[in-house]
Amino acid sequence: MNSLSSNVNTIDWIEPDVARLIDQTKLPYEFITVDITNYKEMEVAIKDMLIRGAPAIGIAGAFGLILGALKISNLESKDVFYTKLKEIGDYLMNARPTAVNLEWAVNRLLALADSIKHLEIAQIVETLKVEAIQMHQEDLDACKKMGKHGATIVPKGATILTHCNAGGLATVGYGTALGVIRAAHEQDPTIKVFADETRPRQQGARLTAWELVQAGIDTTLITDGMCAHFMSLGMIDMVVVGADRIAANGDAANKIGTHTVAIVANEFKVPFYVAAPVSTIDPNIPSGQHIPIEERSHDEVRIVNGEYVCPKEVNVINPGFDVTPARLIAGIITEKGILRPDYKKSIAQVIEKVKA
Amino acid sequence: MNSLSSNVNTIDWIEPDVARLIDQTKLPYEFITVDITNYKEMEVAIKDMLIRGAPAIGIAGAFGLILGALKISNLESKDVFYTKLKEIGDYLMNARPTAVNLEWAVNRLLALADSIKHLEIAQIVETLKVEAIQMHQEDLDACKKMGKHGATIVPKGATILTHCNAGGLATVGYGTALGVIRAAHEQDPTIKVFADETRPRQQGARLTAWELVQAGIDTTLITDGMCAHFMSLGMIDMVVVGADRIAANGDAANKIGTHTVAIVANEFKVPFYVAAPVSTIDPNIPSGQHIPIEERSHDEVRIVNGEYVCPKEVNVINPGFDVTPARLIAGIITEKGILRPDYKKSIAQVIEKVKA
Repeated sequence: MNSLSSNVNTIDWIEPDVARLIDQTKLPYEFITVDITNYKEMEVAIKDMLIRGAPAIGIAGAFGLILGALKISNLESKDVFYTKLKEIGDYLMNARPTAVNLEWAVNRLLALADSIKHLEIAQIVETLKVEAIQMHQEDLDACKKMGKHGATIVPKGATILTHCNAGGLATVGYGTALGVIRAAHEQDPTIKVFADETRPRQQGARLTAWELVQAGIDTTLITDGMCAHFMSLGMIDMVVVGADRIAANGDAANKIGTHTVAIVANEFKVPFYVAAPVSTIDPNIPSGQHIPIEERSHDEVRIVNGEYVCPKEVNVINPGFDVTPARLIAGIITEKGILRPDYKKSIAQVIEKVKA
Repeated sequence: MNSLSSNVNTIDWIEPDVARLIDQTKLPYEFITVDITNYKEMEVAIKDMLIRGAPAIGIAGAFGLILGALKISNLESKDVFYTKLKEIGDYLMNARPTAVNLEWAVNRLLALADSIKHLEIAQIVETLKVEAIQMHQEDLDACKKMGKHGATIVPKGATILTHCNAGGLATVGYGTALGVIRAAHEQDPTIKVFADETRPRQQGARLTAWELVQAGIDTTLITDGMCAHFMSLGMIDMVVVGADRIAANGDAANKIGTHTVAIVANEFKVPFYVAAPVSTIDPNIPSGQHIPIEERSHDEVRIVNGEYVCPKEVNVINPGFDVTPARLIAGIITEKGILRPDYKKSIAQVIEKVKA
């Protein structure tokens, strides 16, 4: 309990037909894994945020599709199999709208399926499963690479602010923003982290603080409104956050509150970085205003630790994400290197590179 | 319960020797008043935030001094009386460091006491009590006047963001920032309010939302990181907050998180106003960097509704206030009118006016 074991990832595939994931709604108080055996359970796990974080829900979607494919692998008609597979994919992709990784992962498997229609159903399912397991490994590898690239721009002894959780728990392991922090810490143990609590769901307090304390990294928890105070005192050297969807122009959707941090960082000339795999870039979306923003349950705002923090009658709005405009972003740290403005160009180039 | 009765103020003097106050730590779930009968209890009530808000703790300090004076009114030596009265004043003023109103109120009474040394002790105490009760009434009157001045600059149908609680509960009644909102609502019932939750102590969720719902004003609770999102969508027309101490150059200390909101408002050209009585201005302090910032208990950040929201081992910093630089403030709404930049001049003028 309370220690992310080195052989437990955020999500793992257990042969022959189980996806095992850490139930993040219980952290940091209980460390529990849940075995998911069908795609409907996986959709619920994504929606209820037992697993969250853009890269992690991509892999969850991929494993969900495999669980669905396994259930229909005894169908006789290949046409029916493909129709149902597509339905399962749509069902999973609709679990959460903002993170593009979910649809990216499911669509990658559906496209592969389309390219191997000549095979037997059993072979198709097996091929998809191998691909999903490879995507799981690729996610880990990408985080390590992001860490390596990102660590090169962390000043010696820096204090880094992060918002929400873009950690090992938001990916298969290691993390995107926290991957950069982990890699920086490996080469310079004097770096420090300020973690925004990240209301409403407090992933910064519950997940990021927990991960970083486990990793032995000096971490201070602050509330979401405090960033201007500490930046005005020169106490923060850089900001690194994750992303849920990056538009072709570099606008980046991330957990609600990120845009606020970016504006404040810009005010104090504190460089603001986004760390995300290339799969988080959605080249089909020209700018941030086209990114769908999930509206989540009002009880996330109204209730903390099972009790109300406000009069029950008050109105609430609870957008899960906001969009930070590209002009506030000093660089986008990917597994392929650090993208810099002009993002339209650097993003187009990296997308070409990945396709090639 | 759950209704701020029209004949209950945040704090009242009950003859002959009781200060009655609403226990704000219980709101919005229980409406309880507490009777304070000696100055040490009052110091605890201020420190533990049973009563909070700069103007309200000013009156609490004044009533605390009267309670202390009553206890020593049977002393035979006037010199000893004055020495002890000064000690009680210092004790009360040290309860909380940031809000200047506390020392302003206590010092006003001590200065009055110094000017009537020729009287008998009983007469001195009676004179101080009359003055304290007058300050209580002045506070209410000042809020009404602030409301009247402030309402003139609220656009028709505006949505106003406020941070923390600068309401009836932060004053004797009616409020400073919420006084402006109440007055604006009296002339235009279509105005709306967005209330920042205001972590760590959630005065926005617990107090402001409660007050405004009672007042029938359309109020939406948001978390502290959301301001950029809603301002970027054009959903907020102005910001009005209170203040705990305003320096001679217009820099304004207020609840932690205010500076963040001010920077974001500035980014989107949303006018940011401070509403506070002239007693909140500290002409002895040239700029915000000289304002003492209270560091409060780390458990305010770590614990919500009696349970931890983070791993117990994580570091915490919990400054109770931050300082918004004058250049981000469109105007300071006082009972004497709206001060505009250049604040050094307009503040010096209003201080002269009040002295005269």
